Amino acid sequence: MDFNEHTATQAVQESFRDTASPRLHELLDALTHHLHAFVREVKPSIHEWEQAIEFLTAVGHTCTDTRQEFVLLSDVLGVSMLVETLNENEGGTESTVLGPFHMVESPPRALGDSIDLVGEAEPCLVSGHVVDTDGTPLPGAEVDVWQCNEKGFYDVQQPGIQPAGNGRGLFHTDAEGRFHFRTVVPSHYPIPTDGPIGRFLEATGRHPYRPAHIHFIVRAEGHTPLTTHVFVAGSPYLDSDAVFAVKQSLIVEFAGPTDENPVRHTEFDLTLTREPA
Amino acid sequence: MDFNEHTATQAVQESFRDTASPRLHELLDALTHHLHAFVREVKPSIHEWEQAIEFLTAVGHTCTDTRQEFVLLSDVLGVSMLVETLNENEGGTESTVLGPFHMVESPPRALGDSIDLVGEAEPCLVSGHVVDTDGTPLPGAEVDVWQCNEKGFYDVQQPGIQPAGNGRGLFHTDAEGRFHFRTVVPSHYPIPTDGPIGRFLEATGRHPYRPAHIHFIVRAEGHTPLTTHVFVAGSPYLDSDAVFAVKQSLIVEFAGPTDENPVRHTEFDLTLTREPA
Repeated sequence: MDFNEHTATQAVQESFRDTASPRLHELLDALTHHLHAFVREVKPSIHEWEQAIEFLTAVGHTCTDTRQEFVLLSDVLGVSMLVETLNENEGGTESTVLGPFHMVESPPRALGDSIDLVGEAEPCLVSGHVVDTDGTPLPGAEVDVWQCNEKGFYDVQQPGIQPAGNGRGLFHTDAEGRFHFRTVVPSHYPIPTDGPIGRFLEATGRHPYRPAHIHFIVRAEGHTPLTTHVFVAGSPYLDSDAVFAVKQSLIVEFAGPTDENPVRHTEFDLTLTREPA
Repeated sequence: MDFNEHTATQAVQESFRDTASPRLHELLDALTHHLHAFVREVKPSIHEWEQAIEFLTAVGHTCTDTRQEFVLLSDVLGVSMLVETLNENEGGTESTVLGPFHMVESPPRALGDSIDLVGEAEPCLVSGHVVDTDGTPLPGAEVDVWQCNEKGFYDVQQPGIQPAGNGRGLFHTDAEGRFHFRTVVPSHYPIPTDGPIGRFLEATGRHPYRPAHIHFIVRAEGHTPLTTHVFVAGSPYLDSDAVFAVKQSLIVEFAGPTDENPVRHTEFDLTLTREPA
């Protein structure tokens, strides 16, 4: 039978019948269903299809060792956040997007070290505990941290201006499950707008800004890893994050400075859930 | 309100409210709906999402000036063929996929010229008329032709082995709407398997072959352009084209050679529909 509007989806789904992995088979079966439904609904012209191919190609060509434009595309379509949310474990700290800037490994640092290697902006102390859902502290937990500087740029965006590893650190909690390090208060910032995603945001009348935040990936033995941010309370764009990543529970105060505590500081706990037995 | 599984789609759709182009707005509204429905249905793990990002990035990095891996991805998912089918004009020759090898402009040639610049394989005459749906011949119609050689390779796949422009030609029909040129009978061939789409086909147990065919784009004033193939009757893979592009009406005999007609030949008409007034 000829491939036509009515037989197309079944023909493609049947072509996947010998897929070795049952999960891949399931994914492709559903992808074909939804992708074809989209195409049938909007009936793209040939020119629109060509524009889509050109857009995806430009996104691919913008990806480098230090830039991930497909993550950015997933982010601005809300897909990254949806995937994070669907994988969230009840009872733990809420998760949010990985984002496109975890491209390089964070340098191992000792508790108390500064991740600010420049020293020109307002300093800030960050501390807290990694705990289990029952409140038990988790010693030796890995706390992977990365953030932009006070001007809104990650180190990989400013080679030659920021030293490599600026704003990044890999810490381990102490015997009481505590982490603490020094940094600068991060700024809100625009996601990179000089590539295809910037053109996409412009065409859709969307601003590119993200509210100020620090990224975390937390790991502890026997527990499910947590990817999240803490957001700086009072930052602009908390109600219109370009990548939809804000959750109210993740907004924390960066207090001070006051006479008693001359250095700005923030304190929060990160709660991990146990891995299923 | 927080972004969650239930609010996600509406939040992203609302972010597109200021899109200047109503058509782009419509496309993104539907894309968000179907893409999120897919994600909610299959609940990808974070690792699966990362694998999808890596796959799309690899597809992008495989695209060059002479290779279009995103077209190939669209092809093997049946999307290219679905878009072509949805844009088909009733009464004309049926259309089929553009494919990834129309990357370079076809060199202008005179009627009767050979598009085979090598001269080592079995020659073949191709002829026919470009006509309107009422049978009126269309003089001066542009007939853009490209095909692989008798071993199954396009010129751009074998730089240094095939001369540039081998298997390609841009012709114009004569006063009777007739085109004719010499070539070699194309072979069935595998789509390129040394990139991400090759790995995709392997993982899904699909063969990469396409039945033998010659590509055409036909244009005439006042008529809708036609993108199609003619398939060589009797070729392997006519019933399992890797890109779903076969339509029964596009299969033609490449007759001979016989004592009377010592050179193989094929003859068919290509029918264009009038542009809507």
